[in-house]
Amino acid sequence: MFVSSNRNKYKEVNSVLFSGGIVVEYHNMQILEMQSNSLKQIAEEKSKAAYSKLSRPVLVEDDGLFIDYLNGFPGQYSAYVYKTIGNSGILKLLEGVLVRCASFISVFAFYDGKSPYCFLGKTHGRISTAIRKGGWGFDGIFIPDRCDSTFGELHQLKKKELFSHRTKALDKFKKWYLTN
Amino acid sequence: MFVSSNRNKYKEVNSVLFSGGIVVEYHNMQILEMQSNSLKQIAEEKSKAAYSKLSRPVLVEDDGLFIDYLNGFPGQYSAYVYKTIGNSGILKLLEGVLVRCASFISVFAFYDGKSPYCFLGKTHGRISTAIRKGGWGFDGIFIPDRCDSTFGELHQLKKKELFSHRTKALDKFKKWYLTN
Repeated sequence: MFVSSNRNKYKEVNSVLFSGGIVVEYHNMQILEMQSNSLKQIAEEKSKAAYSKLSRPVLVEDDGLFIDYLNGFPGQYSAYVYKTIGNSGILKLLEGVLVRCASFISVFAFYDGKSPYCFLGKTHGRISTAIRKGGWGFDGIFIPDRCDSTFGELHQLKKKELFSHRTKALDKFKKWYLTN
Repeated sequence: MFVSSNRNKYKEVNSVLFSGGIVVEYHNMQILEMQSNSLKQIAEEKSKAAYSKLSRPVLVEDDGLFIDYLNGFPGQYSAYVYKTIGNSGILKLLEGVLVRCASFISVFAFYDGKSPYCFLGKTHGRISTAIRKGGWGFDGIFIPDRCDSTFGELHQLKKKELFSHRTKALDKFKKWYLTN
């Protein structure tokens, strides 16, 4: 059971796991998160909270966009920052900035009542100078390394999975799950 | 016992409460906060966490700067936003913006093992167009209504207390505490 309030995430999760022969259901639920510097800690706590409500094995994710020039901002608060200042706010903060390195990091936590297992995926890249179409969240301004398209443009071409931090984390989960 | 990892807050708390005849000690401790839209909820949970560690009546605070044009950003994540993009980041986000209304909101929670009591203080104002000296955190860019000085400048003049959201919340706490 993938637990999240973001259906876009579920679509990506389902696409990656289904191709590996894993069927994952979706439970739309907002879980209160803790404030922490660690995506892993946030994901672990979320997985326990979700399990305690559903009493079924759960998979949750916490992810964030970490921009070097902004000392890691928006990081673990990416969802909140997207909702308030959005892509245009990020571009304004980077106006005139040449070194626009950033990373998208995803941590999945799987919990079945014993102890949570975490899986991390990371994609390096840079922030575009304008908002481009496609995708959701910060997809429209993030260009992964070895690429000239944003996550949003790759999403439209159905190629985001090839570069996605989420896919990298899910591939680790998939491997672990199928051998355990 | 005032529990916080921010000694600047303690100085302000002590100053206000001491003048009301309340002696408050300082315990420097970082308490993990939850991510929530509600300062009250964050403060309540923090007070319970602090009490469970110290087993003594505790007072904690959560505060934030809410900027209208930025949909309330940085709000409940003010400490994190200050550490990453700082005052200069906020000014960059407001470049060219004329309506610069903002509020500083403070919520104190007192907990002695029964149920938490909360006290809210709010100061309306605006964001300056340049960073000015004095104070700490976002003090250097916040000008309270009916004033031409920032919180930082007022702090230097020992007049911040007259306008402070924190004082307003503490005055409510003081009144309640002394009658209970």
